[in-house]
Amino acid sequence: MDASTPYERRTREAQRRLRDRGVDALVLFPSTNLLYTSGFDEHPGERHLLLFVPAADGDSDGGAESLPDPVFLVPELYGEQVRAESWVPDVRTWADEDDPMDAVRGAVADLGLAGADDVLVDDTMNARFTLDLRAALPDAEFGLASSVLSALRVRKDDTELAAMRRAGEVADAVVSDLRGLGADAVGMTETELAGYVENRLSSRGGDGVSFDTIVGAGPNGAMPHHTHGDREIRAGEPVVLDFGTRVDGYPSDQTRTLVFGGEPSDEVKRVHEVVREAQAAGVDAVEPGATTAEVDAAARDVIESAGYGDEFVHRTGHGVGLDVHEEPYIVAGNDRELREGMVFSVEPGVYLPGEFGVRIEDLVAVTDDGAERLNRTDRGWRCE
Amino acid sequence: MDASTPYERRTREAQRRLRDRGVDALVLFPSTNLLYTSGFDEHPGERHLLLFVPAADGDSDGGAESLPDPVFLVPELYGEQVRAESWVPDVRTWADEDDPMDAVRGAVADLGLAGADDVLVDDTMNARFTLDLRAALPDAEFGLASSVLSALRVRKDDTELAAMRRAGEVADAVVSDLRGLGADAVGMTETELAGYVENRLSSRGGDGVSFDTIVGAGPNGAMPHHTHGDREIRAGEPVVLDFGTRVDGYPSDQTRTLVFGGEPSDEVKRVHEVVREAQAAGVDAVEPGATTAEVDAAARDVIESAGYGDEFVHRTGHGVGLDVHEEPYIVAGNDRELREGMVFSVEPGVYLPGEFGVRIEDLVAVTDDGAERLNRTDRGWRCE
Repeated sequence: MDASTPYERRTREAQRRLRDRGVDALVLFPSTNLLYTSGFDEHPGERHLLLFVPAADGDSDGGAESLPDPVFLVPELYGEQVRAESWVPDVRTWADEDDPMDAVRGAVADLGLAGADDVLVDDTMNARFTLDLRAALPDAEFGLASSVLSALRVRKDDTELAAMRRAGEVADAVVSDLRGLGADAVGMTETELAGYVENRLSSRGGDGVSFDTIVGAGPNGAMPHHTHGDREIRAGEPVVLDFGTRVDGYPSDQTRTLVFGGEPSDEVKRVHEVVREAQAAGVDAVEPGATTAEVDAAARDVIESAGYGDEFVHRTGHGVGLDVHEEPYIVAGNDRELREGMVFSVEPGVYLPGEFGVRIEDLVAVTDDGAERLNRTDRGWRCE
Repeated sequence: MDASTPYERRTREAQRRLRDRGVDALVLFPSTNLLYTSGFDEHPGERHLLLFVPAADGDSDGGAESLPDPVFLVPELYGEQVRAESWVPDVRTWADEDDPMDAVRGAVADLGLAGADDVLVDDTMNARFTLDLRAALPDAEFGLASSVLSALRVRKDDTELAAMRRAGEVADAVVSDLRGLGADAVGMTETELAGYVENRLSSRGGDGVSFDTIVGAGPNGAMPHHTHGDREIRAGEPVVLDFGTRVDGYPSDQTRTLVFGGEPSDEVKRVHEVVREAQAAGVDAVEPGATTAEVDAAARDVIESAGYGDEFVHRTGHGVGLDVHEEPYIVAGNDRELREGMVFSVEPGVYLPGEFGVRIEDLVAVTDDGAERLNRTDRGWRCE
């Protein structure tokens, strides 16, 4: 079979892996797993929109294999769009006046899944839908779609890597724009500076933001998931700037900690240098066969040796792909080995509550013998 | 007890309703249910961030009642922020190197829930977390949080209504801005016009968008969930404009179908008038004690009588609150009676695939004797 779209090729490969694992079917709902396999991009909603992917039939040696088509069950108002945007041939609609459970039971019956005993559901599927699937598949044990799909998604192909390189270049250009602001940023609120960043990302060719833009000035930088607020940027204080955009659906994710309009304190300079060294050590540890725990340890050791181990309160990084947070996670205890094509962040940080925070982050892609940084702009605190 | 925040008051009321329903506990994760009860606003993530709300103890007659405090289980990097932004006193953190299941089992044990047999989970809780909760609560039957919370959330208080009125005024003002564009909109792409709308929403005092802005020109207007693309606006063709913003966390949601720079065809005029009449009939049917099915039927009858019944492919409306789609749903077969304080959309539409679509939408609030429109701007197709 000459599958004509990457989406169909991925789905067919998933069907074979389901069979090899003894799983009956995979059920997806609006998510990046659905986008990855079907080509249809949508947010989760309150209506039943489900893709049923049955396992391949026959053995894996070729001859007897058959690949039954998935069933795409969608609300009627999505019918035209799903038929236009997805490769899946069997798209079935249900109307608002119908009971969506009837449609679910019909799809289950037609795919021969009524007696299924092992079914995977989308990791992010909402409870309102998993409860209905449990009712329609009463004999099934349920697992997570990622147990099969993440091994496919974790290694990016050339098209995916090209998109992520371009997204990284857009983010790099906006860091340069920020440095160019220099003392002009002093007196702007965090929210105003976030607006500037988002405007520049768009002007530089990015498509929206890949997560809520973080501008954490002074003590707000000590809250790793603070987004932005009314605090005004002050001269000489560190500002954590963590932002990203998308190119062809794939995100960038980068952090710089900059100081506008003045020299920071000696403590800020010291912490900033420690975090930069930790970030470099993490990236240096990246190569095929290294474990993600080793990358985490390489960065963490630098920070612990400098006496800030208790202030580095999060893992060193996370995989990035269609999801901004996905496998592999760069964290202590994770013995997963790196493979060519994996892409993840290396983003150590030190957070001193009530005072300030420093985080430095780049995305890296694992190559055949090391790492390629997808962000290349200067990592220092200094602006113009 | 004089609860000091609306969030605590709502949680305490939920605890009493859990007890009255014989439910042991409610478990929330980042969602509008979590925001509504805790005051903490966050997107779903891949880390365990769970609020365990145990039922009230004692009887409902007063004297013997006790209200055990909820337990907020959050990743360590959220600890400072959750303690600052939530009223919940018992905030427990777990670190990336910990097994979050240990933290879940600890919370379950401390709340005396290990043998619980009836637990509600957030409707949108991701399967990755519900599977873990099933493992930690092996004897429990699971239901959905909405079975208790939606009856609280569906009737808006004065503060909520005030925010939604202001959000509606912002949207109305941007419709006026759009009409002012007139022929200047011709030649803009849908995406450019969407950018204009979003910029104006912000300038008029809105906070971001409450859903993806829809600009559906010509045949794109026939796909109800098309967002926007590269098609250029043509003179005389109808453009479906469905957009919203937020004020104090509460959204607007409004649709107008406008024609820029010319007269539309007679068929467009006819369909537009039918949809406007249907929308007016739906709003006229709103009063306390009417059912949502009656509102749907009032709008649908107008469209069916005009011969376009098969082209009105969705329900007439949906409730709006912290969620842009929530109870009550205005749909055939829903015998729910309207009550003062409910807020929902009335948004009939006619979709002619390959040709054009027309949808007209306002939000209405149920008053003590009828309906208050939260959008008041002209519903016609004509621009300047």
